[in-house]
Amino acid sequence: MNEKPKLYLIPSPLGDNPVQEVVSEKVLRCAASLEIFVVEQVRTARRVLSRYGLKGRIDSLEFHELNEHTTLQEVKALLELFKRGSVGLISEAGLPAVADPGALLVDLCHRNGISVVPLVGPSSLMMALMSSGLNGQKFTFNGYLSAKTEERRKQLRELEKTALRDHCSQLFIETPYRNDALFADILSVLSPSMRVCVAADITLESEFILCDSVQNWRKKQDFKIGKRPCVFIISESLI
Amino acid sequence: MNEKPKLYLIPSPLGDNPVQEVVSEKVLRCAASLEIFVVEQVRTARRVLSRYGLKGRIDSLEFHELNEHTTLQEVKALLELFKRGSVGLISEAGLPAVADPGALLVDLCHRNGISVVPLVGPSSLMMALMSSGLNGQKFTFNGYLSAKTEERRKQLRELEKTALRDHCSQLFIETPYRNDALFADILSVLSPSMRVCVAADITLESEFILCDSVQNWRKKQDFKIGKRPCVFIISESLI
Repeated sequence: MNEKPKLYLIPSPLGDNPVQEVVSEKVLRCAASLEIFVVEQVRTARRVLSRYGLKGRIDSLEFHELNEHTTLQEVKALLELFKRGSVGLISEAGLPAVADPGALLVDLCHRNGISVVPLVGPSSLMMALMSSGLNGQKFTFNGYLSAKTEERRKQLRELEKTALRDHCSQLFIETPYRNDALFADILSVLSPSMRVCVAADITLESEFILCDSVQNWRKKQDFKIGKRPCVFIISESLI
Repeated sequence: MNEKPKLYLIPSPLGDNPVQEVVSEKVLRCAASLEIFVVEQVRTARRVLSRYGLKGRIDSLEFHELNEHTTLQEVKALLELFKRGSVGLISEAGLPAVADPGALLVDLCHRNGISVVPLVGPSSLMMALMSSGLNGQKFTFNGYLSAKTEERRKQLRELEKTALRDHCSQLFIETPYRNDALFADILSVLSPSMRVCVAADITLESEFILCDSVQNWRKKQDFKIGKRPCVFIISESLI
């Protein structure tokens, strides 16, 4: 390659569905053109690249881990890789560098004149939002709420207040085994007319995306989300 | 089709690049399986579907417009379509129903027990965010700022305050011909250490994504964004 080395942001599938369902040909072609990868976990990244058609040459590829244990100094050292060619960044699932330590490498690339190229892939946040019918003109992603019940309920009340005051949909996620505890808190704390979207297992066979008012949700006694990756959205009703 | 009719959210390319670059095979397959489409503009949607391989049968497809002129009553009437089969929703560019009138149809589908199925496609917001290296653990999309200079500057000061207080990246967009006026305001109003990402022409040949501090941006006197679709992000520095 004579081109100036770049950082390619390589999306991963959100689960075990066929890769043609969730990424474009360009992702497969780009992944196949690279030899150096910075990944959140080598084991996962090898599996993703195998699914992207690199199975036969996985052992000839170069992997460097970048995760929550990596120091700033170590990330800075990764910039040396670009002297030898372009680098692919891969996270555990979905789009890399959105809410994972890879963002630090992206930041350092900008500070060192290395171009960053994003590729199209599944974003559970945007797929949840587009499927919710809720306000997408203004929205906030809040990451994880507190694991402590009282604190979490307080946060939910704050999120409702902000959603109503700023006409701003509020997105958040939860560790899968706590989904149903969080959902119970949502139903107990929010006003009856607030709308709540539950978007689980996005892009998978088992995907379900449901959106209803708190008062209607409260009638569905048997509903359980279970331990699945899930995006929650709360918003005022638009109609 | 014996399956219960659904609403499929069909993404569009962000420009004239080959569709294989930006959407998965599943999008092409799904578009080809549908006969009824709700679209923001028939002309644009016909062009998108032609590029998705439906060129020969465009005239046999059924199109219904849903845009800012459509009344709630008219959107409700669109629910009748599902009695005849599944429906594809297509917006002007990128993901449908995120910040366009299509959201109303999605909302009504949820209220009437019609499943909504999102497909993977290009989201300029998420592609800008992942490429910025800025905080993706918490972020707000603010839509368009005011077109009036004084009001816009006030909003920018507020966004900076919120970004710093809540550690929350702030995304916004602008009508392309006002990009450079907005950018000048950003540089004149924000603190020198704030980071500003400019992500223009995402997924296109002419794509550029630059992220730097306000003080460094101020030194690049010749820089112009021009009339391109562009996402702006402001955030505190993470390192």
